Amino acid sequence: MSFTLLKTDSKTKARRGRLVTPHGTIETPIFMPVGTQGMVKTLHPEEVELLGAQIILGNTYHLNLRPGLDVIEKFGGLHGFSTWDKPILTDSGGFQVWSLAKLRKITEEGVRFSNHIDGAKMMFTPEFSMQIQSVLGSDIAMLFDECPPYPCDEKYATESLELTTRWAQRCKDWVVANEPKSGNGKQMHFGIVQGSIYADLRERSAKELVAMDFDGYAIGGVSVGEPEHEMFRAIENATPHLPADKPRYAMGLGTPPQLLEMIGQGVDMFDCVLPTRVARHGLAYTLDGPIHIKNKQFEFDERPLCETSHPHVARFSRSFIRHLFRSKELLSARLLSFHNLHFFLGLMADARAAIEADRFTEFKDAFNARYHAKS
Amino acid sequence: MSFTLLKTDSKTKARRGRLVTPHGTIETPIFMPVGTQGMVKTLHPEEVELLGAQIILGNTYHLNLRPGLDVIEKFGGLHGFSTWDKPILTDSGGFQVWSLAKLRKITEEGVRFSNHIDGAKMMFTPEFSMQIQSVLGSDIAMLFDECPPYPCDEKYATESLELTTRWAQRCKDWVVANEPKSGNGKQMHFGIVQGSIYADLRERSAKELVAMDFDGYAIGGVSVGEPEHEMFRAIENATPHLPADKPRYAMGLGTPPQLLEMIGQGVDMFDCVLPTRVARHGLAYTLDGPIHIKNKQFEFDERPLCETSHPHVARFSRSFIRHLFRSKELLSARLLSFHNLHFFLGLMADARAAIEADRFTEFKDAFNARYHAKS
Repeated sequence: MSFTLLKTDSKTKARRGRLVTPHGTIETPIFMPVGTQGMVKTLHPEEVELLGAQIILGNTYHLNLRPGLDVIEKFGGLHGFSTWDKPILTDSGGFQVWSLAKLRKITEEGVRFSNHIDGAKMMFTPEFSMQIQSVLGSDIAMLFDECPPYPCDEKYATESLELTTRWAQRCKDWVVANEPKSGNGKQMHFGIVQGSIYADLRERSAKELVAMDFDGYAIGGVSVGEPEHEMFRAIENATPHLPADKPRYAMGLGTPPQLLEMIGQGVDMFDCVLPTRVARHGLAYTLDGPIHIKNKQFEFDERPLCETSHPHVARFSRSFIRHLFRSKELLSARLLSFHNLHFFLGLMADARAAIEADRFTEFKDAFNARYHAKS
Repeated sequence: MSFTLLKTDSKTKARRGRLVTPHGTIETPIFMPVGTQGMVKTLHPEEVELLGAQIILGNTYHLNLRPGLDVIEKFGGLHGFSTWDKPILTDSGGFQVWSLAKLRKITEEGVRFSNHIDGAKMMFTPEFSMQIQSVLGSDIAMLFDECPPYPCDEKYATESLELTTRWAQRCKDWVVANEPKSGNGKQMHFGIVQGSIYADLRERSAKELVAMDFDGYAIGGVSVGEPEHEMFRAIENATPHLPADKPRYAMGLGTPPQLLEMIGQGVDMFDCVLPTRVARHGLAYTLDGPIHIKNKQFEFDERPLCETSHPHVARFSRSFIRHLFRSKELLSARLLSFHNLHFFLGLMADARAAIEADRFTEFKDAFNARYHAKS
């Protein structure tokens, strides 16, 4: 388990790196498709492999609720249960408790809530989150944090960040105490930098976590409704205080231009439901920007979704995919999900190649020029 | 375009045949997966090929409504539009007008109705059905018939059958007049034997159609709510009056034991939404009968759905597929659809091998004994 910084772009902070995990090596920058229930929505693991996905994300909150830890434990973890044998990152459940659960009450101990499925009262603590992720057996586990809302005043943001730091220490303590017992000593642990829109709080959070020495660092509390420039500022305020020799992960982001912007700020890893969620609503990414496949203009369109489409999708015309979408055929959600992930993963591969060739800025500018030309 | 009767079972009427169509050769007996909107629901054509499907069915009524003939014409037909390049059979639209459309009014000319999508008034005639199917460019087109309900008295059944015969002649006349013009001279045309539960009417219908000399014959007006023994009687009453050197097709049927029963009665071709429709509701076929994957008993079940599952599905435990189904993940509908079609197509392959080895009865009895043992 290690991260190697292979190259840094000469004109930006973009980094080309390599992260070795128990289930495989990840070339960064990388986008991680989200597999909330154990697999990327609508797709078969064979297809996720065909896409060249190097790592997928699983959701601790959802998997703990359904199928439940006893089931996953029987299969030796999420890899065995889902049959996906490449790397998996699990989140801590903190964000879902914040965004999905009801009657949430945060205390020093943890978060009490009613779950979104049957309303049953539950409690997540730092220790319980680490325990669940240990059973899931993910390659990368995220520390349990408190995600402040946007907007949020400096007092709340400060207290929230202090709580997140104390919880990070409890996560670490649990891991140290239980790692040999859990039989899962190879899991990496990433801390999550909070601090809302406040530069000094982002700096403080980063430094406190770095002092505890984790395997990687995430920037959290973004994609919570803030304007795009605040999202970028949160990244800019955190990254200078993170060690160069550890991977950096911006959570829950973003659009293709946003990903390139953050790569230029030195971020290595991303995850987002965006490409698969919008796919199920008929939106396809192309080099000329997103298109809504149900639009009348594609009724007779013989072209594939994009000139860079994978053959698995490129065999179909926009006309046929539009027909499937209008007919409510599930194949349309599959094809658009596959296509959008191929677009995002291809963007990462192109970014990696551009960094290696020390022409990241040129690549980014050319991509953005065409992407925005028609809008 | 030809049908060759390769072998007839010595103890039953089961037949092993070969049907050559413009888009490929079909080994019979065969089950045809239904692709209502141009492709089998939830599946990618690559998967339908992986399943070894030799021919799929497209629905004239649906495809005429959406995307419309002008779209499909632009792609040179349904093969070009859907990218499925193996044989396609299209129904006449008659059954869907009967089962889906509203305010249906049958006249000598054809059927007036309001379609089920936007309620627009439309009319299907024998000539229009043949014209649509000519544009679709299917390998096998079905004649436009009137499907009497069950139960139905002998007077209605007689008048309906006479109408079906007159419509069959009009279909034939349209084909003769338009075949050179349509540029689609290689389409086969199958007549549909009607006559409800009346043996003498089934005989009369078969003889009248055979006198017109079509490329194959279907038994229609089954699977309309009649008891199983009436379904089998309709087959038994029709098949003796059909020529041995033409393929026989039982429309819209059936369960695995029903398919074997009808193969034993000399039927060569089947289609049914059953395996894919029940898949979307969580039912999987196994050699020990159907199972409901959402049942609690499969919560920890590490076994694949069936010992004969295809590797594409067999990699997953019943436990994981149950989890996907309970989590409303579309992948569950995909996996069960694929599995059930693999089961049906495998049953046909086994039946073909059994007929070749002249042990069809033994095969059928062994299959049924195990299939029903647990129920």
